[in-house]
Amino acid sequence: MPLDSSAPRPVLAIHGGAGTLLRHAMSPELEAEYRASLHAILDDGAQALARGATALEVVTEAVRRLEENERFNAGKGAVFTADARHELDASVMDGQTRAAGAVAGVTRVRNPILAARAVMAHSGHVLLIGASAEEFAQGQGLEMVAPDWFDTPQRHAQLLKARELARGQMLDHDGQAAVDAGSTARPGAAQVDAKHAAAAPGSGPIDEQTKFGTVGAVACDAHGHLAAATSTGGMTNKRPGRVGDSPIIGAGCFADDRSVAVSCTGTGEAFMRACAAHEVSALMRHGGLSLAEACERVVFQELPLVQGDGGLIAVDARGQVWMGFNTEGMYRGAVRPGESPTVGIYRDE
Amino acid sequence: MPLDSSAPRPVLAIHGGAGTLLRHAMSPELEAEYRASLHAILDDGAQALARGATALEVVTEAVRRLEENERFNAGKGAVFTADARHELDASVMDGQTRAAGAVAGVTRVRNPILAARAVMAHSGHVLLIGASAEEFAQGQGLEMVAPDWFDTPQRHAQLLKARELARGQMLDHDGQAAVDAGSTARPGAAQVDAKHAAAAPGSGPIDEQTKFGTVGAVACDAHGHLAAATSTGGMTNKRPGRVGDSPIIGAGCFADDRSVAVSCTGTGEAFMRACAAHEVSALMRHGGLSLAEACERVVFQELPLVQGDGGLIAVDARGQVWMGFNTEGMYRGAVRPGESPTVGIYRDE
Repeated sequence: MPLDSSAPRPVLAIHGGAGTLLRHAMSPELEAEYRASLHAILDDGAQALARGATALEVVTEAVRRLEENERFNAGKGAVFTADARHELDASVMDGQTRAAGAVAGVTRVRNPILAARAVMAHSGHVLLIGASAEEFAQGQGLEMVAPDWFDTPQRHAQLLKARELARGQMLDHDGQAAVDAGSTARPGAAQVDAKHAAAAPGSGPIDEQTKFGTVGAVACDAHGHLAAATSTGGMTNKRPGRVGDSPIIGAGCFADDRSVAVSCTGTGEAFMRACAAHEVSALMRHGGLSLAEACERVVFQELPLVQGDGGLIAVDARGQVWMGFNTEGMYRGAVRPGESPTVGIYRDE
Repeated sequence: MPLDSSAPRPVLAIHGGAGTLLRHAMSPELEAEYRASLHAILDDGAQALARGATALEVVTEAVRRLEENERFNAGKGAVFTADARHELDASVMDGQTRAAGAVAGVTRVRNPILAARAVMAHSGHVLLIGASAEEFAQGQGLEMVAPDWFDTPQRHAQLLKARELARGQMLDHDGQAAVDAGSTARPGAAQVDAKHAAAAPGSGPIDEQTKFGTVGAVACDAHGHLAAATSTGGMTNKRPGRVGDSPIIGAGCFADDRSVAVSCTGTGEAFMRACAAHEVSALMRHGGLSLAEACERVVFQELPLVQGDGGLIAVDARGQVWMGFNTEGMYRGAVRPGESPTVGIYRDE
């Protein structure tokens, strides 16, 4: 996906999560559907950029669209927690001002990314959590929904399957205890082991049972300003109250006009420990690395040191793009105004 | 406080918050009390280090002691939120493994730092929030208390005073709206403006009404391993659900044996936007800066760019110490096994 350019040109890149490929249950129809969804969001983003929309506006809208799409694990279609609910996290950062906003553990805000943006613009704070974040979002006039509005049959089936796998793995624990396996447990272990099982219900080319489900967007606008946005429903069968990297500025989301805008997806705990998004920026600002060198260092060297699986998308202040991952696949795409989007799922495209 | 040494020697440093000095209401007795508290915690930490305790053990215990001390804004003696409750945040990170744990928005865990450490050791996660974090802590056998156990008369008086100041500032808002002032509001604005008012009830040398109340510890142990721990009660009169930098790995807390252990205190939102703790590490690892150069760059250059007031303490893998702040004062101290602790409050000591 050669989108690099020496000229600073506006660009939007998005991702819809990374994970292992579902080789034995590939559906051409579902794959085409994923590609078409990414393509449509990119097309509209490119038109917005062409009309002069800011990077902040474009990444917010791209993530809002991904949240609205049931196929991606954010907003509608978010995965279920161990107690069969949805807890949503999102963050956004403006590279021009380094203003940032995030929400974690919200259950009633239709579009968590809009809540994150409202936190950034109107709260005087960076992170609001739980019911208080919801009250703030409601006070800002954002659309609220009943918690079960996020339910989808596919995600519920994935929860039941994850519980079944957890029971099979840990006979001395109850069904909910997949995340209780102690200090040696790797987050998402139940899901990772699921990759040898039958296809998860509702899976596209990347196995939904093992996928690191996050969505995100990064952009460089016509003024050379950067922005990043990330949103997630977390992990299927996760412990309630667990917060991953998505709403953490510097971990799953970071933007700074001096360097880069980054949105991550993967084993959230590792991305938090590595401060993955900020590390990309730091390698560019202090280490003199190029965008690609910095991203490769983080995804292929730093993250594996802390057992981090996943990937990230990034744009620098010259409008260069990098999209990469250390898993088998990542839903992703990028576009420049006036050009056709490029969309990818597998490694070699 | 010249504690630098070219030889890698065990060391513990702690802080109890930064802020503006209370020139007109200085009480020698209270000042002595603060100094004695810091001294005692450092003495015990030095003895533990001498006995071979790990950096992780020593920072956890130092922060637990600071939480137990009503004078510091963490654990018992935490400030009140706008709805007259206490929401506590804490984090810990082990530089050897880069394992990390944190809790945010807990109201019933006597020692949030112990909950953070349990999250690190036993949850498979990095961050748990709210009631679920409390359930986890309880399941780990940690001591739980009623939410009003954290109440102290001094902190309640500070809340009433903050509300009064907020009313005076914003006549078109209700008393609780000090944090609702919109995008132009600077977090803690009511507190900052309070510095020209009368002494806050229960203030020591640093005005409690304007102080950035966080406690923290960093250490290098006999094996050259690093650890950092941070805990806070947040800001007086803060919006419920607001989470600052203290429980955010990379913002208020970071440790990596390859570089440095850092604990921060200040305007949390700025420290989050700057990823302050991780930025110190990145400047050392990628920019080749010394401990002091990296810390100075962050405290005196990077943080002011995002209106960040406060300070940090840091130790590197050689056992060098840096403690500094861009405010008028910071409660702080450091000690090496076999030496007498050095304790400071003002700039020129």
